[in-house]
Amino acid sequence: MKKNIGVTLALYPTPVVVVGAEVEGKVNWLLVAHVGIIGHDRIMLSLFKGHYTNRGIKQSGKVSVNMVSEAMLDRADYVGCVSGSKADKSDVFVYHLGEAGTPVIDESRLVMECEVVDNYETETFDNFICRIVNTYADEDVLNEKGKPDYDKLKPVLFEMPNYTYLRTGDTIGKCTGFGKEYKKND
Amino acid sequence: MKKNIGVTLALYPTPVVVVGAEVEGKVNWLLVAHVGIIGHDRIMLSLFKGHYTNRGIKQSGKVSVNMVSEAMLDRADYVGCVSGSKADKSDVFVYHLGEAGTPVIDESRLVMECEVVDNYETETFDNFICRIVNTYADEDVLNEKGKPDYDKLKPVLFEMPNYTYLRTGDTIGKCTGFGKEYKKND
Repeated sequence: MKKNIGVTLALYPTPVVVVGAEVEGKVNWLLVAHVGIIGHDRIMLSLFKGHYTNRGIKQSGKVSVNMVSEAMLDRADYVGCVSGSKADKSDVFVYHLGEAGTPVIDESRLVMECEVVDNYETETFDNFICRIVNTYADEDVLNEKGKPDYDKLKPVLFEMPNYTYLRTGDTIGKCTGFGKEYKKND
Repeated sequence: MKKNIGVTLALYPTPVVVVGAEVEGKVNWLLVAHVGIIGHDRIMLSLFKGHYTNRGIKQSGKVSVNMVSEAMLDRADYVGCVSGSKADKSDVFVYHLGEAGTPVIDESRLVMECEVVDNYETETFDNFICRIVNTYADEDVLNEKGKPDYDKLKPVLFEMPNYTYLRTGDTIGKCTGFGKEYKKND
């Protein structure tokens, strides 16, 4: 018997990312965990309108999305705690500019440079709809097919109900494999 | 030195869910992994327009979002392999209707009943923007505060580059704890 726990946003865990953008001439970083995937070609970044970073994203129309590894979690967490309007966060991460001109964190093992194609605004949030322009990855998190290997990448995940970070677990198996087996036995 | 692997949608892993809706008088199920969180009160479900399920969601304006546990992965995977236009999938899961009238899978350990408040349409996808109306959870996946415990719930996750399912890993720690420690030592 299930318990009705009311309106609980529970669609977790989600990957946390450090969003990078230039704001008023300086690079700024913000930790974002409310993200999404639209179709097969767009991602959504949901940022509270009060964030300093939003200005820069709106002005430049571009943003970097840096996956978070456990080794950089202290600083990723920090840039989610302190506003760029109060502290200069530009030196929290060593970075270089990607081909599209967004700040790519050297230590992040996988980074997507994005251009913002739309803003699905809600009352208090900018929900930036982005197209990926370049994806950069450390060679040691790629598999023999040149694709990101999530068993190696192991992105840090987030859940809001208890406000914790989680690890990415191991691979269970291939999609459609389980369904085919079920159908055969049905 | 990072390698540019081109335009690779790599913002994974994401939780997979079985979406439930009534279509032409029968309950239908579809596996969806391209989801998102908007602000603190909405979720987004991205469904290819060709899916049979979309009709039912549009007609009723409501949908259930059933988190997937490893024990039900064979059937969750199956409902992602076969279209409701070709096969009657209504009996793949035992379910009951929730208070909002959506089909709640008994075996799913956490289910959100949602009402659709908007459709952020792209060329080939319906991206349903939903508000949660009720959240049901098995008591043994709740912690002492009555919140979902992701170490117990362990939702099955998905990544598209290699088309695999992954486990949710263990808790690393509390958000803001790492950042405060970093700031103190800075």
